[in-house]
Amino acid sequence: MPDAGPEFERIAQLLAGLPAGEGVVVGPGDDAAVLRVRDGRDLVATTDAFVDGRHFQRDLLTPAETGARLAAANLSDLAAMAAEPRWALISLVVPHGWSQAECLMLERACARTLAADGAAIVGGNLASAEGPFSATLTLLGDVARGHAVTRAGARAGDLLAVTGFPGSAAAFVALALRGDPPSRARVPSAIVERVVAPASRVRVASALAATGGVHAAIDVSDGLAADLGHLCDAGAVGARIEEALLPADSALQAAAQALSKNAAGQRAQLARLQLGASDDYELLLSIEPAKWAECERVARELGVPLTRVGEVLAEKVRVLVSGSGAELPLESPGWDHFRART
Amino acid sequence: MPDAGPEFERIAQLLAGLPAGEGVVVGPGDDAAVLRVRDGRDLVATTDAFVDGRHFQRDLLTPAETGARLAAANLSDLAAMAAEPRWALISLVVPHGWSQAECLMLERACARTLAADGAAIVGGNLASAEGPFSATLTLLGDVARGHAVTRAGARAGDLLAVTGFPGSAAAFVALALRGDPPSRARVPSAIVERVVAPASRVRVASALAATGGVHAAIDVSDGLAADLGHLCDAGAVGARIEEALLPADSALQAAAQALSKNAAGQRAQLARLQLGASDDYELLLSIEPAKWAECERVARELGVPLTRVGEVLAEKVRVLVSGSGAELPLESPGWDHFRART
Repeated sequence: MPDAGPEFERIAQLLAGLPAGEGVVVGPGDDAAVLRVRDGRDLVATTDAFVDGRHFQRDLLTPAETGARLAAANLSDLAAMAAEPRWALISLVVPHGWSQAECLMLERACARTLAADGAAIVGGNLASAEGPFSATLTLLGDVARGHAVTRAGARAGDLLAVTGFPGSAAAFVALALRGDPPSRARVPSAIVERVVAPASRVRVASALAATGGVHAAIDVSDGLAADLGHLCDAGAVGARIEEALLPADSALQAAAQALSKNAAGQRAQLARLQLGASDDYELLLSIEPAKWAECERVARELGVPLTRVGEVLAEKVRVLVSGSGAELPLESPGWDHFRART
Repeated sequence: MPDAGPEFERIAQLLAGLPAGEGVVVGPGDDAAVLRVRDGRDLVATTDAFVDGRHFQRDLLTPAETGARLAAANLSDLAAMAAEPRWALISLVVPHGWSQAECLMLERACARTLAADGAAIVGGNLASAEGPFSATLTLLGDVARGHAVTRAGARAGDLLAVTGFPGSAAAFVALALRGDPPSRARVPSAIVERVVAPASRVRVASALAATGGVHAAIDVSDGLAADLGHLCDAGAVGARIEEALLPADSALQAAAQALSKNAAGQRAQLARLQLGASDDYELLLSIEPAKWAECERVARELGVPLTRVGEVLAEKVRVLVSGSGAELPLESPGWDHFRART
């Protein structure tokens, strides 16, 4: 008699076996989740959506890898606020071409990635529809009251630093799409690893904020130049970035080489990867110079690459100091879904 | 130099002019929102997605009406928990066929509907993609610690009551889709009004919970029989529903008449609307009999139709007492997106 129906069964499967979260008074399966925010903490909330063919491609990323990246995209937003991830709600729009097994793999990998940073899925929504698969994750976290780090707050003279190797995601896409069919086989394995299992910056962000030296932070999922623009706009400041300081490990250098024929082209290509549209889940931080040594030590102890790439200017200009020492206006193409159509 | 790009401009437009919310430390425009939950309150979180062609049809609902319904769907989930809505995050997946003006109308109407219940949009996401438009709203609210009403908790002997007129949304769809092209002109205006601007049950839910007489509640967005099933499952109880008690105003009766040719068919049709799949944002409540009179008074004072439709049984069966007095097993078709494909 209880006519559960396939949707209810699918939802029940998706809910079953999720790791329990701390502070969860009512978990998945009711009309809403009930969650206990600790006294003296502010709630921090973000949401991000992945659409098949737009934010990921099924022939390049498995459902599990997509789930991990969806978690990472949201974790990165909370890291930028120096917040502690706690709870998430996931909403799936599922076309015929996606099996329940694939949905489960995506959701489970998302849950595992969240769990590594202390967060649990506490609710969600499932809808079928024609058109591309999409997954929207809303991530909730908390932070000591009044201690969230925002985009605003950068001060002239601050050092600008980035975690990891921005441009890796752009390199992955460019190399993988170079042939037909698209293939990861052409991408250096270190870059594949960075894309399919992005390192979390949650812990290092909290530790850096705890030094008291972080005046502003933003996640660079739009690309370094674009997100630097957002940081400068929010703080009403400018910035000077030194191309020679931009971090590039051998994998990113190899990618730039593969994408261009001559040395000059390779340098330009590398800068394009590092500064242009690339959805790496890394952080750009504006750090008080007197705290730089301590921040460097904190990052090193956590094994996180943290590289000084420039400084904050009082004047609202954005300048790139090229390898030859020339000062160029810093363009910020960013990752712009709507550019192509206008 | 700041290459904002069309996507950033679109986002800026969507963020501009949103009403400010209470307890918002950092609002839209940063990596995440920062929100101040009041001490002694639990956080309540839900998410719901609308997909064009699945949860709404552009030829039947305007973007603004769709935005209002999206808000109402989420508000209804919080009402079911007796929670107070506070903040929301909205995520839009936008195909070519949707203009920025339409997105704005949808979002603004969503924000207005939320604001009427004290909640504000504090963040979101915008992505372009081929395929149907979809909008996902995550709604956060709070409730006095430990006072959330859940689906579980119904006790044998409780009275079962519903707000409003479940079946109205199903009547709207059935009548509007009866001709080609689909048209609202065939739908009684009282039903159109209920669908395009669903009444909020947030206030009445809190007031009913404050009587101490509500043991369990669920929103009936899947349809009354299906959601009764969920309530019974969660509480490990059964239920008896009396067909003759199911609320039907003249508009719902007129709809049933229009959908069937003879009197017997009309009665069956009415019951099908009232019990079957229908995404009304009404509540089903399990109420202690000693508190019924007080609950009736509370609802009347707030102008909310509250109708006793049956009772909770200790035995885990679900029974429908038909108009003729016969006891039938109560089926629960529900709103099942995945039924058609299996």
